Amino acid sequence: MRITIDQIQDFNKSRESDHHQHFQFLQGQLEEKGVDTEEVMRRLQQFQVAIPSWALGAGGTRFGRFSFGGEPATLEQKIEDVGLIHALTQSAGAISLHIPWDIPQDPAATKQFAGSLGLAFDAMNSNTFQDQRQGQQHEQQQQQQSYKFGSLCHTDAAHRAQAVNHNKQVIDIGVSLGSKSLTVWLADGSSFPGQLNFQKALARTLDSLKDIYSHLPSDWKMYIEYKPYEPNFYSTVIQDWGTSHLLANECGENAYCLVDLGHHLPNTNIEQIVATLLWRGKLGGFHFNDSKYGDDDLTVGAIQPYQLFLIFNELVYGMHKSASDNPSPAWMIDASHNLKDPLEDLMQSLEAIRLAYAQGLIVDHHRLEQAREENDVTKAQEILQECYRTDLRPLIREARLRSNGAIDPINYYREASIRQQLIKNRGLATVATGL
Amino acid sequence: MRITIDQIQDFNKSRESDHHQHFQFLQGQLEEKGVDTEEVMRRLQQFQVAIPSWALGAGGTRFGRFSFGGEPATLEQKIEDVGLIHALTQSAGAISLHIPWDIPQDPAATKQFAGSLGLAFDAMNSNTFQDQRQGQQHEQQQQQQSYKFGSLCHTDAAHRAQAVNHNKQVIDIGVSLGSKSLTVWLADGSSFPGQLNFQKALARTLDSLKDIYSHLPSDWKMYIEYKPYEPNFYSTVIQDWGTSHLLANECGENAYCLVDLGHHLPNTNIEQIVATLLWRGKLGGFHFNDSKYGDDDLTVGAIQPYQLFLIFNELVYGMHKSASDNPSPAWMIDASHNLKDPLEDLMQSLEAIRLAYAQGLIVDHHRLEQAREENDVTKAQEILQECYRTDLRPLIREARLRSNGAIDPINYYREASIRQQLIKNRGLATVATGL
Amino acid sequence: MRITIDQIQDFNKSRESDHHQHFQFLQGQLEEKGVDTEEVMRRLQQFQVAIPSWALGAGGTRFGRFSFGGEPATLEQKIEDVGLIHALTQSAGAISLHIPWDIPQDPAATKQFAGSLGLAFDAMNSNTFQDQRQGQQHEQQQQQQSYKFGSLCHTDAAHRAQAVNHNKQVIDIGVSLGSKSLTVWLADGSSFPGQLNFQKALARTLDSLKDIYSHLPSDWKMYIEYKPYEPNFYSTVIQDWGTSHLLANECGENAYCLVDLGHHLPNTNIEQIVATLLWRGKLGGFHFNDSKYGDDDLTVGAIQPYQLFLIFNELVYGMHKSASDNPSPAWMIDASHNLKDPLEDLMQSLEAIRLAYAQGLIVDHHRLEQAREENDVTKAQEILQECYRTDLRPLIREARLRSNGAIDPINYYREASIRQQLIKNRGLATVATGL
Amino acid sequence: MRITIDQIQDFNKSRESDHHQHFQFLQGQLEEKGVDTEEVMRRLQQFQVAIPSWALGAGGTRFGRFSFGGEPATLEQKIEDVGLIHALTQSAGAISLHIPWDIPQDPAATKQFAGSLGLAFDAMNSNTFQDQRQGQQHEQQQQQQSYKFGSLCHTDAAHRAQAVNHNKQVIDIGVSLGSKSLTVWLADGSSFPGQLNFQKALARTLDSLKDIYSHLPSDWKMYIEYKPYEPNFYSTVIQDWGTSHLLANECGENAYCLVDLGHHLPNTNIEQIVATLLWRGKLGGFHFNDSKYGDDDLTVGAIQPYQLFLIFNELVYGMHKSASDNPSPAWMIDASHNLKDPLEDLMQSLEAIRLAYAQGLIVDHHRLEQAREENDVTKAQEILQECYRTDLRPLIREARLRSNGAIDPINYYREASIRQQLIKNRGLATVATGL
Repeated sequence: MRITIDQIQDFNKSRESDHHQHFQFLQGQLEEKGVDTEEVMRRLQQFQVAIPSWALGAGGTRFGRFSFGGEPATLEQKIEDVGLIHALTQSAGAISLHIPWDIPQDPAATKQFAGSLGLAFDAMNSNTFQDQRQGQQHEQQQQQQSYKFGSLCHTDAAHRAQAVNHNKQVIDIGVSLGSKSLTVWLADGSSFPGQLNFQKALARTLDSLKDIYSHLPSDWKMYIEYKPYEPNFYSTVIQDWGTSHLLANECGENAYCLVDLGHHLPNTNIEQIVATLLWRGKLGGFHFNDSKYGDDDLTVGAIQPYQLFLIFNELVYGMHKSASDNPSPAWMIDASHNLKDPLEDLMQSLEAIRLAYAQGLIVDHHRLEQAREENDVTKAQEILQECYRTDLRPLIREARLRSNGAIDPINYYREASIRQQLIKNRGLATVATGL
Repeated sequence: MRITIDQIQDFNKSRESDHHQHFQFLQGQLEEKGVDTEEVMRRLQQFQVAIPSWALGAGGTRFGRFSFGGEPATLEQKIEDVGLIHALTQSAGAISLHIPWDIPQDPAATKQFAGSLGLAFDAMNSNTFQDQRQGQQHEQQQQQQSYKFGSLCHTDAAHRAQAVNHNKQVIDIGVSLGSKSLTVWLADGSSFPGQLNFQKALARTLDSLKDIYSHLPSDWKMYIEYKPYEPNFYSTVIQDWGTSHLLANECGENAYCLVDLGHHLPNTNIEQIVATLLWRGKLGGFHFNDSKYGDDDLTVGAIQPYQLFLIFNELVYGMHKSASDNPSPAWMIDASHNLKDPLEDLMQSLEAIRLAYAQGLIVDHHRLEQAREENDVTKAQEILQECYRTDLRPLIREARLRSNGAIDPINYYREASIRQQLIKNRGLATVATGL
Repeated sequence: MRITIDQIQDFNKSRESDHHQHFQFLQGQLEEKGVDTEEVMRRLQQFQVAIPSWALGAGGTRFGRFSFGGEPATLEQKIEDVGLIHALTQSAGAISLHIPWDIPQDPAATKQFAGSLGLAFDAMNSNTFQDQRQGQQHEQQQQQQSYKFGSLCHTDAAHRAQAVNHNKQVIDIGVSLGSKSLTVWLADGSSFPGQLNFQKALARTLDSLKDIYSHLPSDWKMYIEYKPYEPNFYSTVIQDWGTSHLLANECGENAYCLVDLGHHLPNTNIEQIVATLLWRGKLGGFHFNDSKYGDDDLTVGAIQPYQLFLIFNELVYGMHKSASDNPSPAWMIDASHNLKDPLEDLMQSLEAIRLAYAQGLIVDHHRLEQAREENDVTKAQEILQECYRTDLRPLIREARLRSNGAIDPINYYREASIRQQLIKNRGLATVATGL
Repeated sequence: MRITIDQIQDFNKSRESDHHQHFQFLQGQLEEKGVDTEEVMRRLQQFQVAIPSWALGAGGTRFGRFSFGGEPATLEQKIEDVGLIHALTQSAGAISLHIPWDIPQDPAATKQFAGSLGLAFDAMNSNTFQDQRQGQQHEQQQQQQSYKFGSLCHTDAAHRAQAVNHNKQVIDIGVSLGSKSLTVWLADGSSFPGQLNFQKALARTLDSLKDIYSHLPSDWKMYIEYKPYEPNFYSTVIQDWGTSHLLANECGENAYCLVDLGHHLPNTNIEQIVATLLWRGKLGGFHFNDSKYGDDDLTVGAIQPYQLFLIFNELVYGMHKSASDNPSPAWMIDASHNLKDPLEDLMQSLEAIRLAYAQGLIVDHHRLEQAREENDVTKAQEILQECYRTDLRPLIREARLRSNGAIDPINYYREASIRQQLIKNRGLATVATGL
């Protein structure tokens, strides 16, 4: 199913006058403070966040999974779902695939279908943390090696070769779809002291990554993700940004670090890590979600929206205002939908991201730098909080309107009974592949 | 399969002379310091830890599960596995069942079979954190309510009633097997701010627990477990010992708190919680495991063996030496075996538990109290570390020998190729029910 | 020095028209959604937060302290400082004293002076975590016992008696000033395993608290504060709300728990603790601050403003809307001012508190409960975030204006060069007693 | 005061026969397993840990400080104290000075005095985290700039220059004493979001470090310490090993990272960081202590002795057995003595360090690697725990005996009433400079 611009405009009609009143009041307020609202909206319209194919069905925990009706069962249905979100929000113009869950039968057709919904193919994701049940026909031979004890770090060369080859094949599939990057997330690690030789495991991982990197087309990037724990509970080979940074530097200039908001130890200052990587020009990928305890994969902005703003403040500074030379990172939402309708959840995440981005965009960095130079800590805090406390939702709605999106995506979704239609089309019992 | 005393004695024979040499040296050393080694061994021999039925197969994480060969597929096979561990270690004389995974077809026969292996039925465990796929024939009707949004705390009375009734049926099954206690662990909570009315959820949980408690035979105990997070990632209804204690007090004198070592926030002083509950006479159940990050469910003693000793120091004091009136808690190992052979892992856990218990038993509380009275912090630390650093393994082996166990259980297990026999008997592809 | 209403009105004049425009727009917006803005402002005007006497000078860390000019050196100067804050913000109508730092020479005069500035005396604070350099004349004899190894939990009866008597004298001083409550915060604990007998330490603390409680006038309350660590680094006798709750229950109905936002382990769900205590009618005191790592004592709302809102959502529900019977807690800011001007910092804290309170007041609990009953998690989140994202600052300003406060307190403070005047009056080198 | 070899031998006499019995039994046991006990003891004898000059007096917290009698008031007395510890333990053959607290009046004489006690001068420590009360005569001019808002990262060039010059002067003093390294620990950071421009602060810090590095003699090393928080509570410029590693790489080959065990976020896998730095040849300095919550600075081995062993397992492997080319790090104890006699506390720390080192030395890396190659997780754990559980204290005592140390240093210290003599010589009220 698709949502047409006409349908959205019908929905918007009754809400527009109210919206314009709020928008104009806010715009006046902001312009008075020197904010170029048109520029802010232009940037908001350009900002697109990829949706991963595995976030469209119900997630689960090790204790169980509660299914959700109308989950997408095929790659085409996943693209369809992202198309729905994008039509309503105009901010999810890309999908990020996971291999072997999303192997296209006819890449050209898949690419065309996605393009017809305004969607590009963002970073490709490989999977070396699970043993796949069926033989993977796209690979030259049946899987023979288990990833139980690691993949790129494995003590056995045959295991490493299998994992390296899998990544190369993921690149090839990505090339056929027009993707330009590969994300490598490794579960490799150990759950017990003594299990792993840390030095050797890291050296083997570096060698494997270099091998994968050698297969990368020259206009591609490789993102190396880090995570402190889970699914291993004593050590993870790439445990933090420092390790990811070291590996990326060794691989080459097209290798970058990937920050996932949920992949940090308690109390980590993530915004400072973001700033450091931007300073070095090495921030390549960014996974949005929120969490209270660990890698909880909750809706973006559901727990710590102020931290999200602080991170965006660094991103805006690093992308637009500092002397560093960091390319625009690949943005993606990486969440798990155990309790909410995944599409509603993703729309809430997109709204929280845009809000934080807009807050970051209205920060007056000239005034902020001045306060910093004077060590006026009170004023520096006031400047940030002033931006954070301003209600920028009318601006976000206006930017969405101008892109032909819905003023209120979630209410459109509910009023138009989209989930019910998906259930009708796909059934109650489908299960999306994924986590 | 069974292991006979003769087989074990054969195995021990070649190791005995070496063992006796070590044991005698240690015994002399300890007696010189005033330790009554016979009394210590007597207590060690009496100390039995229950094995939960779900810990005998491979565990998993939300990212996947790697099967293990020869997993027990039936209740009888699970009892058989615990019997093997018990024969070798003489310290796992009980099994803890989980309903609906372990419903006995013929309770009398099941009880007799377990008894023939020296096993009793420890606390019964209910399950209201998953929707069961098949109808549960032991319940009067098909399950109709989902536990997706909670069980005992659910907003809907019918859901709560179903969960309460399930617990009552678990008690009934336990009665038929000779169990004397019920453990209630609830996943109830919320993953998003706003989702739950905290006050109402707690009030409803209290009402449900009282209802279950009313069904408890007078010689039974109810254990209320707490946990800060997972599988819910914003709040858990029974988040800490304080909540568990409040609920247990309201339910009645046969309601107790249950401490699981992995169910605490980072850096919690667990030994102090144990002491506090012992002081109030409210420590009812105890789940052993170890962890570095969260509820990692690793082998006992694999990460923080000194903390385990400190906890046992409180347990020994609370059970034997203080004026409080706490009944002996129900001991159980609650771990997940993602990488190791579950039976080997459990034997490592049992060894770590015994070691910590023995270390706790040789603490000279008279000297310790004296150092405390004088605020001689250096000496208090010396007294504890002296006990911890002493190598008590010969004592543990001797106690095991006297109970007809194996001097070295894991090596017996490996030399006798027990896993290979289990695989031969049961196949490679069986999957144990459970987490 | 004092700030007059005339001076404030002069300051406000040029800002009023702009303010009224914003206020009217917001008011219209809120009334449309059914918010009774007059009622919200009435509650905001009534909400007064105490300033502790020790928060008016520069704080420090164990690594050093950087002095601030114009710090108050006497009790009168401290009251004067709170008077300045209150005149500008109209929300700090009380001061909380710390004995022996703030012993009034002439209580009646002190009371009258504070009253002339619109200030009441909030909870009295005792100090048994430091040895005082000079003999404390208000006590019958010189201090002879050191608190190095604890106070109310001390192994030695004479130490405990000294600490109990000190608390009784603090009550007596409080009575003379019109205070109605005592806050007991204990540093008591241990830094090394073995140092303390947990059971005995808790039993002795309970006995000491009961002794203090027996001295409490019938219209007084006693608040028992908890904290997991610092200044002791292994255990703290009252480590969590569960311990505080247990002790308060044993002491009697006028004993309550006190929540300090910084006194929790990483990732604690504080709002749930608040809800639990309100449910039991045992939330007595509340200390505001913010933190990222431990008891950082930062400006309220500087790190986790959304958490603050979630806490206020529970407070509003518990105080106004639930069936529980919790008296209004004593509110206080407990922060340390290492880098900012303390008065500016406190005004930032007060603004953050009011903002979160206002956000909590506009939550439509009827709609929220409905969403909860339906387990509509998406909607429950939307309802809370809608309130949080609305910019309520015009409402807060209006409430302040109506109470004769400044539209913009910090800018008044800066433009009127108040710090410079304080330095001129008091000197650069004064040092406020306190932490 | 000094302790002579004769006095120690007198003390040892009555304990020797008992010791030899234990030692011989252990030696036999170890040799049977293939351990070269003579080689282990040789390494133990060589292993010397520096004592920092500031660890010899009572420490404190921001809440207060409880003095200890007989604290060293002069540099000579500090050296004397380390001499006492070294005489007894034969494992503290170096002192680490802190400037400006320990400026020698006559470096040659100081050097000779230390040498007469068997002590060398380990890494020099600079101080740019406090404003010094008196003018620092060794510097060309009075201090004019405050470190309140940072030192090497400061926004103002004059502040940075002062801090850089201070470090250069510390190097010069070190040269005069025969030290070979400089440790740079920075408190620089921020306590509030917005306060600092992360990118600029890091860039300025790098420039300052390069400037200091340019002053380094060619046979010197510079150690860059990292720490996540405290005394700043929002960000620290060098927050983790990744940042330290990045800076060290930029400075040059004589710049290294320094690991302090207490400077990590909760649950950090420190042993893996150690292994990573050893792999890169960049582990330069090591500060021992223990902690449960933050930078608690407790006695080494008091909280997590198993973690200490795991770290030593990496150190032994990295120093002796891997192909990496890391020079031997500078070892130091960095603890704070709030409750215990500092000298006793340091002797407990030294014992814990030696124990963990000895445990690491007896690990059979050949067998361990074999188990790892086979992914035999159970066996890998068994191998490590076997070493950890073996009571190696007799071996440590024997190594100490052979170096003319005391069999039981703490009991010597107590029986000889050394603290009482220090109090008699120095008085009760002296205060050691330092933290």
